[in-house]
Amino acid sequence: MKAAGILLAGCLVISVTGNAQQLTQYVDPFLGTGGHGHVFPGAAYPFGMVQLSPDNGDQGWDWVAGYHYSSNTIAGFSHTHLSGTGIGDWCDISVLPLADTNGATAPLIKIPFRHDQEKARPGYYEVQLSNQVKAQLTTTERVGYHRYQFPGNKGWLRFDMGFAINWDAPLAANLQLLNDSTLVGYRLSTGWAKNQRVYFAARFSKAVTHSRYLNLEEFSDGKAIGKQSKVLLEFETGNVPLQVRVAISSVGTEGALAALNETAGLSFDAVDQLATAAWEKELKKIEIQTTNKELATSFYTALYRTCIAPVLLSDKDGRYSNHDGKIGQSLNDQPKYTIFSLWDTFRALNPLYTFTQPEKVPVFINSLLSFYRDNGLLPVWDISSWEANTMTGYHAIPVIADAILKNIPGFDVNLAYEAMKASAYQQQRGTPEYIRFGYLPQDKHGWSVTITLEYAFDDYCIAQVAKKLGKKADYAYFMKRAASYKNLFDPSTGFMRGKDSTGKFIEPFDPLLSEHGFEGQYIEGTAWQHSFFVPHDVAGLAALYGGKNNLVEKLNALFNSPSEMHGDNISIDVSGLIGQYAHGNEPSHHIIYMYTALGRPDLAAEKIRLTVDSMYKTGPDGLSGNDDCGQMSAWLVWSALGMYPMNPVSGEYTIGVPLVDAARIQLPNGKTLEIRTKKINKSGRTGVRSIKLNGKSIPVQSVTHEQLLRGGLLEFTIHP
Amino acid sequence: MKAAGILLAGCLVISVTGNAQQLTQYVDPFLGTGGHGHVFPGAAYPFGMVQLSPDNGDQGWDWVAGYHYSSNTIAGFSHTHLSGTGIGDWCDISVLPLADTNGATAPLIKIPFRHDQEKARPGYYEVQLSNQVKAQLTTTERVGYHRYQFPGNKGWLRFDMGFAINWDAPLAANLQLLNDSTLVGYRLSTGWAKNQRVYFAARFSKAVTHSRYLNLEEFSDGKAIGKQSKVLLEFETGNVPLQVRVAISSVGTEGALAALNETAGLSFDAVDQLATAAWEKELKKIEIQTTNKELATSFYTALYRTCIAPVLLSDKDGRYSNHDGKIGQSLNDQPKYTIFSLWDTFRALNPLYTFTQPEKVPVFINSLLSFYRDNGLLPVWDISSWEANTMTGYHAIPVIADAILKNIPGFDVNLAYEAMKASAYQQQRGTPEYIRFGYLPQDKHGWSVTITLEYAFDDYCIAQVAKKLGKKADYAYFMKRAASYKNLFDPSTGFMRGKDSTGKFIEPFDPLLSEHGFEGQYIEGTAWQHSFFVPHDVAGLAALYGGKNNLVEKLNALFNSPSEMHGDNISIDVSGLIGQYAHGNEPSHHIIYMYTALGRPDLAAEKIRLTVDSMYKTGPDGLSGNDDCGQMSAWLVWSALGMYPMNPVSGEYTIGVPLVDAARIQLPNGKTLEIRTKKINKSGRTGVRSIKLNGKSIPVQSVTHEQLLRGGLLEFTIHP
Repeated sequence: MKAAGILLAGCLVISVTGNAQQLTQYVDPFLGTGGHGHVFPGAAYPFGMVQLSPDNGDQGWDWVAGYHYSSNTIAGFSHTHLSGTGIGDWCDISVLPLADTNGATAPLIKIPFRHDQEKARPGYYEVQLSNQVKAQLTTTERVGYHRYQFPGNKGWLRFDMGFAINWDAPLAANLQLLNDSTLVGYRLSTGWAKNQRVYFAARFSKAVTHSRYLNLEEFSDGKAIGKQSKVLLEFETGNVPLQVRVAISSVGTEGALAALNETAGLSFDAVDQLATAAWEKELKKIEIQTTNKELATSFYTALYRTCIAPVLLSDKDGRYSNHDGKIGQSLNDQPKYTIFSLWDTFRALNPLYTFTQPEKVPVFINSLLSFYRDNGLLPVWDISSWEANTMTGYHAIPVIADAILKNIPGFDVNLAYEAMKASAYQQQRGTPEYIRFGYLPQDKHGWSVTITLEYAFDDYCIAQVAKKLGKKADYAYFMKRAASYKNLFDPSTGFMRGKDSTGKFIEPFDPLLSEHGFEGQYIEGTAWQHSFFVPHDVAGLAALYGGKNNLVEKLNALFNSPSEMHGDNISIDVSGLIGQYAHGNEPSHHIIYMYTALGRPDLAAEKIRLTVDSMYKTGPDGLSGNDDCGQMSAWLVWSALGMYPMNPVSGEYTIGVPLVDAARIQLPNGKTLEIRTKKINKSGRTGVRSIKLNGKSIPVQSVTHEQLLRGGLLEFTIHP
Repeated sequence: MKAAGILLAGCLVISVTGNAQQLTQYVDPFLGTGGHGHVFPGAAYPFGMVQLSPDNGDQGWDWVAGYHYSSNTIAGFSHTHLSGTGIGDWCDISVLPLADTNGATAPLIKIPFRHDQEKARPGYYEVQLSNQVKAQLTTTERVGYHRYQFPGNKGWLRFDMGFAINWDAPLAANLQLLNDSTLVGYRLSTGWAKNQRVYFAARFSKAVTHSRYLNLEEFSDGKAIGKQSKVLLEFETGNVPLQVRVAISSVGTEGALAALNETAGLSFDAVDQLATAAWEKELKKIEIQTTNKELATSFYTALYRTCIAPVLLSDKDGRYSNHDGKIGQSLNDQPKYTIFSLWDTFRALNPLYTFTQPEKVPVFINSLLSFYRDNGLLPVWDISSWEANTMTGYHAIPVIADAILKNIPGFDVNLAYEAMKASAYQQQRGTPEYIRFGYLPQDKHGWSVTITLEYAFDDYCIAQVAKKLGKKADYAYFMKRAASYKNLFDPSTGFMRGKDSTGKFIEPFDPLLSEHGFEGQYIEGTAWQHSFFVPHDVAGLAALYGGKNNLVEKLNALFNSPSEMHGDNISIDVSGLIGQYAHGNEPSHHIIYMYTALGRPDLAAEKIRLTVDSMYKTGPDGLSGNDDCGQMSAWLVWSALGMYPMNPVSGEYTIGVPLVDAARIQLPNGKTLEIRTKKINKSGRTGVRSIKLNGKSIPVQSVTHEQLLRGGLLEFTIHP
């Protein structure tokens, strides 16, 4: 792309000229570690098994990733971290460097540090602890690489199998020194993920001079056993930093030992460079041009966060441990991934992957299908192969449907279709009652409105696949189910409302009522936030309101309603409020783009700019809610490029308003799509005035996946 | 001695002809393991450090030696056991053989057994457990020697540092495999003995094939640490018994490892033979002739029990651990002993030692003086170097005084005298008030009557030593204190009674009241049992009663009173009752011999025979009360020989009535004393009619230590 001509050199912040400029410099791993972003600042590899990151040793909702910027202590560097979730778990295999052995036997050690002594970039984290130990962390896919400079001639590492956050609790663990420089171990824990297995193998650059195991239950044939077990290892480091490579596996210590080969012969610095290169490769997939440094940081940090989860679960040989302890092998002998936060990611992150991760999309889908094979159903929320059944819907379906409808090869479509239908006919989670009544009666199951609307959408997805596969009966049947949302519309209030089995709306009704827990009509939020989830049939929804204009008015009212909520148990997940629009939680994410679908791209542009300005900032407080494994970030990536998959399976991207000056996107087929914006000032209007695709005007409505895959230039003329 | 002529060969049960007959065959280690004897059945070495004996795994007063015949389970074989005490402790370093690993991780394992599968003799114990393991135990001074035949080709041993009985609880412990056939460890515990340290070193005849440590707190550099720590060791034994040698030390594992040399190159059978020989040597010191097999068993079992405690505390190099953790070396570089149950043993056991243990008497006294040097006062109840201050009096004084008065060499008399006076002036245990008031007022200190009488006797002992050392002022002073007993005599009731600080008797008075605990006037018993403790001045006591006949009548009343006791908290230690005479507890032990002192040896003989018949039996129920480290047994040894040290420091032995037909006693000076009884039947009389010492008649009153040391023949003519 030769876009240099349209910008003054002095304004250039990020070039799209293909120079060897490091895009990783725009990523701030601390962004979102404050507030309720729930992301971690440590070292990760794209979609890798290891997320080597500091844990504060504090508990609570804002420490679900082990770390929150409000804390000033570090209790260890553990190897697995969830990115932006609403529930805490993982933080397995915690390692803490100690400068002496005072207090080293305590159940928990929290070493103070200052944030100005901390640095991070993709694949790298460092901190100077108050105990005078300098810690540096980097990682490969399966190996966390630690480098510790101790203040004296000796140093100590504490491996703590008992370290746990929030719901998580160890059920069993062991530790074993295989020789004077190799420690292996195992941690079985329960929490959000039940029966989660993490094996590890740690190799030290120096021999262990003393070992001290703590909190054991047993010590058998050299193996320390105990769910709270810890080991304190002493090293005579002299003045040389101690390098520690810790590989993990869900299968066994042999798998972890084999994984150490990822770093065989590699220094810390070499691995750091490899991690940087891997991240650079990811970020380069979308190069943007902007004079807004904050936007650059938000954008690339968001793009970085779209590449943390799904998380690799399998060893190099493709084997992984299922939650039931059985050893599995993923379909097509592909790597197996876990962490499918599908209620969040089906909306915008998975569609983004059809551009940014063309090779991984079928691998992810095969992971979902392997889950189906292993456990009988597609996952709802797959954490470490455990079906947490967190949240509502059966949203593996839109992910798979999108891939089928976009003709992405690499998985068994028939098996996929069978799996999708199995979800749609499952005998749990309100599905039978939803089918029987045409809506889920609230007296049969909580969250009945959210579930009905989400099932209806998911059923629409199946219908589209059925149509593509020529299964006409299925198409007709699931299209009927796709209209189920209409059964809960209350024209008198203009909201989707819960009904009981007799068909009566639940009374009294308060659109500001938020009931966290299993008994509410809406999951995490109010009627305002949940009434517009009909991404597959905006026209149908508008008809319920008496026409498009009425629905536009209702959306306006959404943004203009008071931000208050009522109830004894208001959901903490509802955040990032503009009126009752809650950008901090996913049910709102598609709503702005409905304006465009309703013929008002100007209002979409207005709300997008408002949302980005108020909800995406730089710094630790930069996220308005849980990043939810990249969905919150994916919204920004799409929106910055001027479009969004309002209906995630439609193969269309609804137009918003581009925030960047230009962008270059590597397309799955090897082609390149360039985006440019041309700003014109005209009073009385806002947003996109016109769009040209390769010189040809297209409506300010949407652009198709197929159109974009042709590559070339997508030119927006916008009112800034 | 040529005594064969006086007995028909057919009636001979025990010969005194010097044949190689094994006297150990008459010892029944199970005698007294039922009832309240509180003795252990396992393998001991005379005064050795190790008492390797089975523990039932049950708790309670009758399990203070780990084992009670009423139990039918074995939880392990531990290496230290108290013999006949009233409080439980020790049972350190418990080893349990297992035939499989089912349930091997349980906190406590109790393996059933049947008593008909059990055998024991001095220095040897065996049992066939229900898990098909045959266990055999023997011992040297410091090394417990185990032999286990397992039913399969493999066997397991569980060493349990957490095993504890009654008050005892581990404070710290560790275990470490030094190599594939050596386990060392340590146990620090608190209980009756505070800060008791036992280190051990175990060597196995087979290599350990698997080790499994349980209940750890730490595992440091090969050392398992945890107060409840256990290790399960696997051995591939094939069909060969596993031999295990476990040495112990109070100083350290090095001391225990060094002590293993006691058994270097020795098989189990060889050690068993050495232990048998050592016991045979002890028992041969007093050979008896009797046709009464039960008496032979009672006598030799009693003599055996007089050689268990004091217990060796020091390593071969003379070092021992004091309760404060300091490493000591005993005076004169002699072995250091512990377990001085002085309230019991000063009465008859320590005087017996002046015959049977001439070499050990100065060693024991140097142990007492080392205790004085280490801790500032002579011990009251020395358990593992801890001053338990159990019971009343300062009865190290009579033990030392007896040795001084008998001119036994081998300790520093001046130091001893200083130590005795330190006890008599101690600023605790009621001593200052006893001195100030001439009696211990009950409102100042409980047990005031017992304490006053016992202090008075102990002060008499100091006076006698002062006299011998030419310290006339001290003599006069302590003789005055020796008369303190008179201050508590109540002529109106004929009892010693508690007074308050104003000199008034405590009212109301009930001579059958027994108040266990710290608040009673008498320790463990009633006024009946405690009013006659004036062994140093029977004439003075008689005078208080208005003459000898009146005191004889009072003693008759003692035996004829109802055996009932009153109170909410009657002492469990009061047992073996004949009227209010309680042979099962020590305050009664001298009383019968007071009859002789009062001119009625016939009544003494009558009561002695009654007591022996009713209180010393064979079988598990053979003891009428706690053996109290051999004092109950020593009473029988003396009484069977026709005499008793009624006043333990008088150098006189009061005549009772011999129970044996003949006896041969090895005297400390190498000479031999023979005792013979000649029975005559004359109606209307009982007991000893006349006595000839080397052919010369002596009164039926007492015989002196000096007379006996001349050796020769002591001939009793008795009414049977």
